[in-house]
Amino acid sequence: MSDFNIETGTVTTPKDFLAAAVASGLKAEGLDLALVYSMVPAQAAAVFTVNKVQAAPVILSRKHVADGQARAIILNAGCANACTGDQGMADAKETAVLAARVLGVAAEEILVASTGVIGRPLQMAKLRQAIPEVNRLLSPHGGEMAASAIMTTDLVPKHFSLTLDLDGVAVHIGAMAKGSGMINPDMATMLCVITTDAAITSECLERALRRAVDKTLNRLTVDGEMSTNDSVFILANGAAGNTLMRTEDEHFATFTAALTQICLALTRAIAADGEGASKLFIVEVSGAKNEGEAHRAAKAIANSTLVKTAIFGRDPNWGRVVQAAGACGVDMDAARMSVDFAGMAVVRDGQPVPFDAEAMRSALAAGEVHAHMHLAAGPAGARVYSCDLTYDYIKINADYTS
Amino acid sequence: MSDFNIETGTVTTPKDFLAAAVASGLKAEGLDLALVYSMVPAQAAAVFTVNKVQAAPVILSRKHVADGQARAIILNAGCANACTGDQGMADAKETAVLAARVLGVAAEEILVASTGVIGRPLQMAKLRQAIPEVNRLLSPHGGEMAASAIMTTDLVPKHFSLTLDLDGVAVHIGAMAKGSGMINPDMATMLCVITTDAAITSECLERALRRAVDKTLNRLTVDGEMSTNDSVFILANGAAGNTLMRTEDEHFATFTAALTQICLALTRAIAADGEGASKLFIVEVSGAKNEGEAHRAAKAIANSTLVKTAIFGRDPNWGRVVQAAGACGVDMDAARMSVDFAGMAVVRDGQPVPFDAEAMRSALAAGEVHAHMHLAAGPAGARVYSCDLTYDYIKINADYTS
Repeated sequence: MSDFNIETGTVTTPKDFLAAAVASGLKAEGLDLALVYSMVPAQAAAVFTVNKVQAAPVILSRKHVADGQARAIILNAGCANACTGDQGMADAKETAVLAARVLGVAAEEILVASTGVIGRPLQMAKLRQAIPEVNRLLSPHGGEMAASAIMTTDLVPKHFSLTLDLDGVAVHIGAMAKGSGMINPDMATMLCVITTDAAITSECLERALRRAVDKTLNRLTVDGEMSTNDSVFILANGAAGNTLMRTEDEHFATFTAALTQICLALTRAIAADGEGASKLFIVEVSGAKNEGEAHRAAKAIANSTLVKTAIFGRDPNWGRVVQAAGACGVDMDAARMSVDFAGMAVVRDGQPVPFDAEAMRSALAAGEVHAHMHLAAGPAGARVYSCDLTYDYIKINADYTS
Repeated sequence: MSDFNIETGTVTTPKDFLAAAVASGLKAEGLDLALVYSMVPAQAAAVFTVNKVQAAPVILSRKHVADGQARAIILNAGCANACTGDQGMADAKETAVLAARVLGVAAEEILVASTGVIGRPLQMAKLRQAIPEVNRLLSPHGGEMAASAIMTTDLVPKHFSLTLDLDGVAVHIGAMAKGSGMINPDMATMLCVITTDAAITSECLERALRRAVDKTLNRLTVDGEMSTNDSVFILANGAAGNTLMRTEDEHFATFTAALTQICLALTRAIAADGEGASKLFIVEVSGAKNEGEAHRAAKAIANSTLVKTAIFGRDPNWGRVVQAAGACGVDMDAARMSVDFAGMAVVRDGQPVPFDAEAMRSALAAGEVHAHMHLAAGPAGARVYSCDLTYDYIKINADYTS
């Protein structure tokens, strides 16, 4: 992958994008409604949660993005609008209609995303008032506010940008995400909005997005929970003026690499800012039968509460890595496996290797900890991004606040 | 299932069984080596972890139990003898040889179980000294000590007994287990020993054990982790003098029901005493396509860190139950599903139902909390036994004690 310079721009860094945010009252306090808008028609693509229970905004947005066109994305925190039955679908539709009306576009050009409590209705009276307000505030400098408005228990807003050169034309990508944080009693929902001024067909845009997300946001796990609302949206408005990308040529490859890199930056930022997390935990699996099994083993290790608490406690307890991988059902050769924990060899060819436990404790104190397991069962590998499990995770999720 | 009266007897409650325990020094303090012995030849059966990484004692015991005969089980805490390579297998074998020598039986008649740190060798010098000692202490009153010796972070020893009547002959079953507790840095290993003075063929014994475990101990999850060492052993020495059970007749059905009930008592006791647990959490899934999917959905709910922290925090956040079930990939009809949380209806036919949040908070304060989800996708159901996720779980597993 080419290396691009990741900067701290926003969804309004690409040309002809505006954004804004307001406090609608859906949350007890703070910004909770964001709008991202392309001043010109844009190609659009999205990927959504594969949870069997899907929130109304997910169902609606999937429909609206199906034609590869969209103009704006409206996102609220404070209510997931999930498990809300027929009323929930009516509310999601009304949200799109309200946004379309103030923007002067068709309702089908609006994508909708929600994060918050499951099973409670959207307070539409508040949205009816707030949507015209957020429209009035739209500006080319609104990206930062929009990134703040979608935060829940995230400690830091997450937004990045980069510039790529396509035959002398500067093309920009901007992105923002909210992570697996919750406002109690929220779900751990991941929402992500990416904007670009690249000229690209919607087919190519969707292909690029799927490839980028598959290697990055789909390799992210904070607590193994998959929300009813997870959504990643991308809008491409062509304002950069590059030659339209319409096939998988060199420009498409460069664009996909850039998109992957910005998604990776979001992935690392979300993992490091996971609920209660004290450090980023990166799991690498190699020697798997195929990539699916590599991914499954890496997720099993990253989601193991025993491994995660060991990482938190700086406990050189590498046996938990082996146990988690062995329990997840993937092919492995226990007599030939190898394991590195916090950068130190602990198993080679199935035999334990002596290591300096004090040195490992120091290594485990770093802000980023790596585990690597070689399954000795094939050629495939995968990497997963996660975090440790701490007292604060329990605190955030057990408080009596619903 | 018939109801049997569960009592607090032990593995020495059935006739002609002896047991003992000593402090061998494998643990820093306390009893850590237990021996259970049948004074007469016994039929034997066992079920083991399906983790791809299996500890040396698991591999050895599977071999020794294959002929359906065994005389004794030797169990140690403080060291799992897992990921210990060739030396580990040699040590497990030597443990069996040492126990066989003092008992005057063949090494193949000894079953071996270990729980403790992964990746460290067994301290054989200590076992060479302790095995003759534990043999000298064998007694018909040793069941309680044996149950204590296999405890790790378990707060209470777990042992039960019951008596069943087979045509006027009193048959006894005794059982002990250690739960998913850890001595840091142990694995969450479940070890279980069941004794009975029933006369039964080894084929029938194994069938009865598999059926009982499938409905009970296999439906237990504390933290979703499966150990390299999980083992359930049963010895049947025929001392009760009942007519030999050799087919699936009425006596076999009664015996299997009794065995299932004692395994259920162990399951509930292990779940309630899970690491850091403040309450028993029972998940019931109905309306699944088949029993496998029902079990998978129930385990997904029971293992969800979000659900578990809500149970701990008495948070009426039933949306997490729906999210966990939806994420696990089983068939469900979100438009027709129903959910009860802490005994109260919260979703009916896919629509949220108003409920009294204060009343639910009170219900969540009980020592036993139930969740029920109807998937509306078929006729099958399953029940899973678990516990909540608390600060103490993190504390137990994150301390710097390895």
